[in-house]
Amino acid sequence: MQRGFEELFNIDGQSGRALMPYPHDPHHNPDIKGWEAISAAERIEKIKPILNEVELATLQASIGAISGNTMENTGFFDLLRWWALSGYSAAGVFEFTETYKIATGQSSFARMIFEEALATGNLRYTFDTVISTVEDSGALVKATTLSNTKWLAKRLVSTIPLNVLSQVQFNPPLPPKKLAATQKGHINFGAKVHLEAEGSDLRSWSGAAWPSKRVFACHGDGLTNAGKNTHIVCFGSNNEFAHPREDCKEFAAEVKQLMPMQINKVIWHNWLKDPFSLGTWCVFPPNYSFQYLEALRERHGNILFSSADWALGWRGFIDGAIEEGSRAAKQIIDELGFPKKIAGLL
Amino acid sequence: MQRGFEELFNIDGQSGRALMPYPHDPHHNPDIKGWEAISAAERIEKIKPILNEVELATLQASIGAISGNTMENTGFFDLLRWWALSGYSAAGVFEFTETYKIATGQSSFARMIFEEALATGNLRYTFDTVISTVEDSGALVKATTLSNTKWLAKRLVSTIPLNVLSQVQFNPPLPPKKLAATQKGHINFGAKVHLEAEGSDLRSWSGAAWPSKRVFACHGDGLTNAGKNTHIVCFGSNNEFAHPREDCKEFAAEVKQLMPMQINKVIWHNWLKDPFSLGTWCVFPPNYSFQYLEALRERHGNILFSSADWALGWRGFIDGAIEEGSRAAKQIIDELGFPKKIAGLL
Repeated sequence: MQRGFEELFNIDGQSGRALMPYPHDPHHNPDIKGWEAISAAERIEKIKPILNEVELATLQASIGAISGNTMENTGFFDLLRWWALSGYSAAGVFEFTETYKIATGQSSFARMIFEEALATGNLRYTFDTVISTVEDSGALVKATTLSNTKWLAKRLVSTIPLNVLSQVQFNPPLPPKKLAATQKGHINFGAKVHLEAEGSDLRSWSGAAWPSKRVFACHGDGLTNAGKNTHIVCFGSNNEFAHPREDCKEFAAEVKQLMPMQINKVIWHNWLKDPFSLGTWCVFPPNYSFQYLEALRERHGNILFSSADWALGWRGFIDGAIEEGSRAAKQIIDELGFPKKIAGLL
Repeated sequence: MQRGFEELFNIDGQSGRALMPYPHDPHHNPDIKGWEAISAAERIEKIKPILNEVELATLQASIGAISGNTMENTGFFDLLRWWALSGYSAAGVFEFTETYKIATGQSSFARMIFEEALATGNLRYTFDTVISTVEDSGALVKATTLSNTKWLAKRLVSTIPLNVLSQVQFNPPLPPKKLAATQKGHINFGAKVHLEAEGSDLRSWSGAAWPSKRVFACHGDGLTNAGKNTHIVCFGSNNEFAHPREDCKEFAAEVKQLMPMQINKVIWHNWLKDPFSLGTWCVFPPNYSFQYLEALRERHGNILFSSADWALGWRGFIDGAIEEGSRAAKQIIDELGFPKKIAGLL
C-alpha cells in the first residue's frame, strides 16, 4: 500500500508537497486545480504501468476503504488532502486516521460534549426530529419540524449533513450554487463493520481485497474488553444494502473468505439508509471542491452552515466538526455577544 | 544541522520513536527515564566521534538557540520532546517551530484573546501588578498585591511563570516538591533579537556560530512590511546582559561578524530581567521532568496552576499556554458551573 500511495500522490516530484503545501488551505496553489477535476481512476490509470498486480489491488482496496465508492466516483483531490494532512506519508495516513482511540469510547466523548453544552444552562434540545422548513424573516429564524413544532432564534446553525441538506426547504431559498452542491452531494456510501472474532490470533491481521463486492480492507484493532477476542474493523461497500440483518451476514461471509475466523458478533450501522446522514464521512467526487466548497461554507442571512462535511481541515472527521462548530460559535458571539438566552421553544 | 539532530536523537535505532512514542505523554515509556537525567553535553559527547567539525558546531548552535543555555545545563529530554513533537525530523523542527506566523502579528493575537475574554462580561483585570501573597482560606482565595489591593475568588488560577513562582508567598505554603521545582526553575536564559537589515539580499540567509559569546543562530525571516528590508531573527545568549541599549549593540556587532550587513533597527526584550518572566520559553535542565513535572501541574487546594511552563505538549509555546488554560477552565467549570460572577475586587 505504501508503494502504491507514494506513486499515486507523487504528482510534483515532492510527494504532493509543492502542489498542496497547506492542506488546511487546499486551493492555495492554483496549479492544483487541474488535479481536482480528475477521479482516482484517472490517476491510477497513469501509474498502472509501474505497479505490480498486488500493489495495484492493495492501492484500490485502500482507496475504496477511504471513499466507500468506486475509483471513478472518488475525487483524487480529497485523497491527496488525507495524504497531505497526514504528513505526506502512508505511515502518517495510518497513524493520523486509524491509530488512536479515546479510552472511554467515542460515545462517551459525544456524551461529554453534550453534557458540557447542557451545563451552560443555555441549551434546549430535541432528538429524532425532522426539520422540514427553515425560514429567515431577517429578525428571527424559524425552524419548523415535521410535527409542526417551531423553534425560533436570532441565528440558526444548520449542522444538517451535505447529503441531507437538499431535503430541507429554506425560505428565502438557498442560493443556486449551494443548492447544486447539496443536490450533487458527497460520494461516500461505504460500510464500516465491526466484528468480534474468536480468540486473539487475528490481532495483527490485515486484509485487502480488490476487485470485491463488499469488503475492501480489514484489520485487527486490539482485543475486546475481556481480552479474549479480537476486534476487527472492516471497510467496504454499502451500496444496495437493504436488510441490515441479511446485509451484515453477507458482509461477514465475505470477510471469512478473506480469512477463516469464527465471528461472535457484528456491529454496524447503515448510515446510507439513515435519514439523518444518507452517507458516511464526506468524500468529494471529482470536480467538486473548486466549484462548491466556498458556497457550502457561506452563511445565508441569519443561517450559518456548520458541518464536518465542508470543514477545511479534517473534513468528515470529528476534528472537522469541531473546526466548523468553532467557526459558527465565534461568528455568532461576535455578532450577538456571549449567550444569555438566545433560543426558545415557541 | 539535520545530520547532527538525526544522530543526537537516534537513541533507539528508530529516531526516538520507540523511547518517546507519544510526546504529549512524555514519560509513557519508562525506559526514557535514564535519558531524562542526562544533559545535552553528555549526549553530544557520545556522538562526537561520528560528526565532523561543522556538523558539531551547527548542532550545538542549534541546541543553544532552542535552550538559551550551555550544553551542560540543557536537558537532553526536552530537546527530544521538540524532536518528537515535530514528527522526529529536522525539517519538522523547522516547520513546526519557526515557519508559520499569524498574518496580523502575535500582539494582535494576544489582543484578540483578551478582547474575547472582556466580551464575556466576566473579566476584571489589572496589569503591571505584583502579587505578593496568595492565601486559601478553604472557602475563598485571596490574592494581595504589593500595594495591598485584595482580589477574592472561589478559585484562583495562577499563571505565574516557573521562574517567578518562588517569589510569591502562598498560605498554606506550597508543598515541598512544588516549591523545590520552582526554586530550581527552568534554564532558558536565551535572547531572541530581531534585526532589520538593509535590502533584501539576506532573506534566505542562515547563520550559526559555536562557540560563541552572544549569537548562536540567525536566519532571514521575510521582508519588512514596506518590502524593502529583511527581517532577521537571531537566537543567542542573554546571560549577563545588563544595559538593554548597550547589550543589543553588542549582540548586533556579533551578528555583523557572522555576516556583514547594515542594521537599521533592533527589537528585543530582556525577558531575563523582566520581573514577570525571569527567563524566556521554558526548557528543563537535566533530571527535572520525572522529578517535578507532576508536582508543578498539581493544584493546591483552590489554587490551580496553569502555565505553558508545565504543559505536557508544546511546553513554553503559546500552544502549551492554551493547553494549560483549557485544563484549568474545564476543572473550574466542572466544580463551579459556568461563570456568572466568580471574582470581584474587595
